[in-house]
Amino acid sequence: MNISHIEHIGIAVNSLEEAIPYYEEMLGLKCYAVEEVADQKVKTAFFQVGDTKIELLESTSPDGPIGKFLEKKGQGVHHLAFAVDNVNDSLNELGEKGVQLIDKTARKGAEGLNIGFLHPKATMGVLTEICGKE
Amino acid sequence: MNISHIEHIGIAVNSLEEAIPYYEEMLGLKCYAVEEVADQKVKTAFFQVGDTKIELLESTSPDGPIGKFLEKKGQGVHHLAFAVDNVNDSLNELGEKGVQLIDKTARKGAEGLNIGFLHPKATMGVLTEICGKE
Repeated sequence: MNISHIEHIGIAVNSLEEAIPYYEEMLGLKCYAVEEVADQKVKTAFFQVGDTKIELLESTSPDGPIGKFLEKKGQGVHHLAFAVDNVNDSLNELGEKGVQLIDKTARKGAEGLNIGFLHPKATMGVLTEICGKE
Repeated sequence: MNISHIEHIGIAVNSLEEAIPYYEEMLGLKCYAVEEVADQKVKTAFFQVGDTKIELLESTSPDGPIGKFLEKKGQGVHHLAFAVDNVNDSLNELGEKGVQLIDKTARKGAEGLNIGFLHPKATMGVLTEICGKE
């Protein structure tokens, strides 16, 4: 598995309407896309920072993963996503090494990328995603 | 203020001895430095991933900031650090815009960089650092 860079950092926020102006006006970053991922019950907003994106995640339903995270932990970093060449090959390799996985095969995430999540119990408390075009 | 990239992601871990092998052997990243920052009561381990570093933080004292974080929240992402040209100028600009700050002027952090922290209440739950060579 070859990780080339951190593809994005997912940050759970109560409200995109409140968070986007902070990232734009205070930090000077530019929101280039807002996208709803119905499957994940989130609305996302993207900012490019060097070779990494910040992905703000607003929950669209209290029973979705971000809704549950916000209720339990409040706003903050939800996950890190590492860019890999091939998500299925990488998930197989991690599984063979004994890493506990949430996704055994790739599924589609935001921006049309293949994604897969590792289990936070296996990753020192950091919910970790791998993602890539293949 | 011009943020060029995410300089590092600080991750609180219980033990570098346990966490470094996970990042190296499972994720295939390479630890290039281990450094103690006595002032912050932490031992740090660095991994370069694209233009961003992962900075693992092990507490050297329960009453340090990472010791307190681990006790309250457990292992996980502790802070994000954005690279800026000039830390003091950026802190001044943020203060003038009304962003609540932990550091009003730059201090020295790991790797000899100037650093300053914004207050998590001002940053949608993400402890945010700015850092740079100047």
